[in-house]
Amino acid sequence: MDPERFKDLLKPVETKIIMLVLDGLGGIQKKPGGLTELEAARTPHMDRLAAEGTCGLHCPVGAGITPGSGPSHLALFGYDPLRYQVGRGVLSALGIDFDLKKGDVAARGNFCTLDEKGRVKDRRAGRISTGKNRELCRILKDIKLPDCQLFVETVKEHRFLLVLRGKDLGGSISDTDPQGIGREPIPIEPRDQKSIKAAVLVSEFLKQARKHLIDKYPANMVLLRGFSQLPDWPSLEELFLLRAAAVAAYPMYRGVSKLVGMDVLETGDTLEEQIRTVEDHWENHDFFYLHFKPIDSAGEDGDFERKTALIQDVDRFIPRLLKLKPDVLIVTGDHSTPSSLKSHSWHPVPALLWTANCRIDPVREFGERACMAGGLGVGFPAVHLIPMALAHARRLDKYGA
Amino acid sequence: MDPERFKDLLKPVETKIIMLVLDGLGGIQKKPGGLTELEAARTPHMDRLAAEGTCGLHCPVGAGITPGSGPSHLALFGYDPLRYQVGRGVLSALGIDFDLKKGDVAARGNFCTLDEKGRVKDRRAGRISTGKNRELCRILKDIKLPDCQLFVETVKEHRFLLVLRGKDLGGSISDTDPQGIGREPIPIEPRDQKSIKAAVLVSEFLKQARKHLIDKYPANMVLLRGFSQLPDWPSLEELFLLRAAAVAAYPMYRGVSKLVGMDVLETGDTLEEQIRTVEDHWENHDFFYLHFKPIDSAGEDGDFERKTALIQDVDRFIPRLLKLKPDVLIVTGDHSTPSSLKSHSWHPVPALLWTANCRIDPVREFGERACMAGGLGVGFPAVHLIPMALAHARRLDKYGA
Repeated sequence: MDPERFKDLLKPVETKIIMLVLDGLGGIQKKPGGLTELEAARTPHMDRLAAEGTCGLHCPVGAGITPGSGPSHLALFGYDPLRYQVGRGVLSALGIDFDLKKGDVAARGNFCTLDEKGRVKDRRAGRISTGKNRELCRILKDIKLPDCQLFVETVKEHRFLLVLRGKDLGGSISDTDPQGIGREPIPIEPRDQKSIKAAVLVSEFLKQARKHLIDKYPANMVLLRGFSQLPDWPSLEELFLLRAAAVAAYPMYRGVSKLVGMDVLETGDTLEEQIRTVEDHWENHDFFYLHFKPIDSAGEDGDFERKTALIQDVDRFIPRLLKLKPDVLIVTGDHSTPSSLKSHSWHPVPALLWTANCRIDPVREFGERACMAGGLGVGFPAVHLIPMALAHARRLDKYGA
Repeated sequence: MDPERFKDLLKPVETKIIMLVLDGLGGIQKKPGGLTELEAARTPHMDRLAAEGTCGLHCPVGAGITPGSGPSHLALFGYDPLRYQVGRGVLSALGIDFDLKKGDVAARGNFCTLDEKGRVKDRRAGRISTGKNRELCRILKDIKLPDCQLFVETVKEHRFLLVLRGKDLGGSISDTDPQGIGREPIPIEPRDQKSIKAAVLVSEFLKQARKHLIDKYPANMVLLRGFSQLPDWPSLEELFLLRAAAVAAYPMYRGVSKLVGMDVLETGDTLEEQIRTVEDHWENHDFFYLHFKPIDSAGEDGDFERKTALIQDVDRFIPRLLKLKPDVLIVTGDHSTPSSLKSHSWHPVPALLWTANCRIDPVREFGERACMAGGLGVGFPAVHLIPMALAHARRLDKYGA
């Protein structure tokens, strides 16, 4: 159901929901007869929740689609990621905690190598070091543009963030990245009337950048793509009457939380600190999004054992969350990151919903295959989790008489 | 698939479908390790159907959505309840068997209490008795409106039905109910040109109603909402080539059946009488909707044992239905009404489809957890039941070559 349609059903009650997101939770077996990382992990507390709750496997974006962290989190927050789209520029800004303002125009930048004829020879300039990147960004920051503040911020290796801040700037601008080698960068084009001014400024930036970088081989030019501006989306409070808080150590996840109007709480790097943050703010919010990143990183590194051990680490903290007496506790991932694939994947993601009033299903442990027999179903859309949480938290009125 | 798209596939064959709807069938366990009402019930006949058929759990409206009886039944009949919406006024009329005509404007009314400043003090006038309601409706019925017939009919406690019958009346009129206390009733506003005349008449009704009720504290005024007119929907015959009959003891369900063009058959209050009605009319229709209400009422009363016993009562009548040799028999509910919640709920609803040509799944008994392993899936949309029934009744041609 369109989230806008929940408005008429929402009840302002004092119930609490925790959504614990283990980044990249889902996995696959290394070989037939084997276990997934979650299945291999000893998780007595999550198993108890699974046995007392209802389980399933969600599909973040669509069948066969491997989601990035932005879309997969939007889905967990109840925002259809095919409808609510964020540009790459904005995502880059969120990923480095850059304080993007309404009206700023952001783009994802790559340092690249042009050959002597001005054609792209390497779209990533040989993946220069992050240190080198910082050095080059310092040079580009000095470029002056009329009536406009310029930010050039290092992301990592060859990647940087470009932000223009000024009056009346539109973000509908074409990419310069030709997405292949042997071709020249594509000249900037505004896609609407509102974006002409920004397009002119970006063209001027590119002209000057080329001058400054001409002798910096291999990073002798930049490519820009994903021009975008902060979207103007309804907040979780507007859509679902949830005063929501985000507890996340990584900038990207704090950023996506801000996009949907969450209060981003100051917290530490460890799960211990993050759970203390939830405890300290328990009275002030209805919905807590608690994000744990290292499981995904272990999957990306192809480290089955570390991923398993990290899942076990999280499990030990479940009793602390239960002590808060949440009305609804959801434990899931934003996507799968099987260590044998060393990357995000399209595989449905284990999810458990624990509440006093759920229909208890036959699932007795929290694992991919166990969840296939669960009451939430296999491959249910991740955007259903928030409506389900609202229902079990008794926050929704009847639809129709 | 959009129901309009079935038209090209429909075949006029002589097969029979029965849809037995046990109102509020779905339940939940009272505690971990327990059984649901349906699981606790001894249902040898339904268990046999489950073993020979295919089962699942349907979702009437959407994930997390608790449906009212109107939307949930429309879904069972193949009408997407988010697209086919009925106003509260029309539903109130259906619920008391009021013979609403095309063009009538119906509204749901509440007797309410206004304070000395004319602000709403109690939206339900202290839930006056139904007897008192009848007395007040008799007074309001005497109000005269120009060129227009007025009906004021008791529903229950503080609730009544208002109907205006006249020429060229539009039903797009705003509510007067401020949906909270401490505020004055909202003046009537037409929402389109066509509804100006009716809005003027309703305003006049309200003025006179206030005069008649001023000394009837606590019921010293009325609030109106859900102004609506009979919708002009395609019938089950137009959409699915089904000559459909409704066998239901309660007005609400007969009313919804009429909205989708069913013939509403005269019947009695007991299941015995209702099944005899199906038997008597077996030759004249393709589709029989047979509705049994008391299971929902037991759930609403929080009476687990009575709900269980009533399910068992229905089970005993299954052989009578099978003797008719239906090509397709569906047994399901319109929504869940767990006795521990004493209300409709959002939990998916057990469904079984019994036919000669279904794919038999591993389910061996009819119960919520058993159905989770079924061939219809978990949380499948209730609107899929009619297409599934048509297919298994061999009423659908191939789509495409």
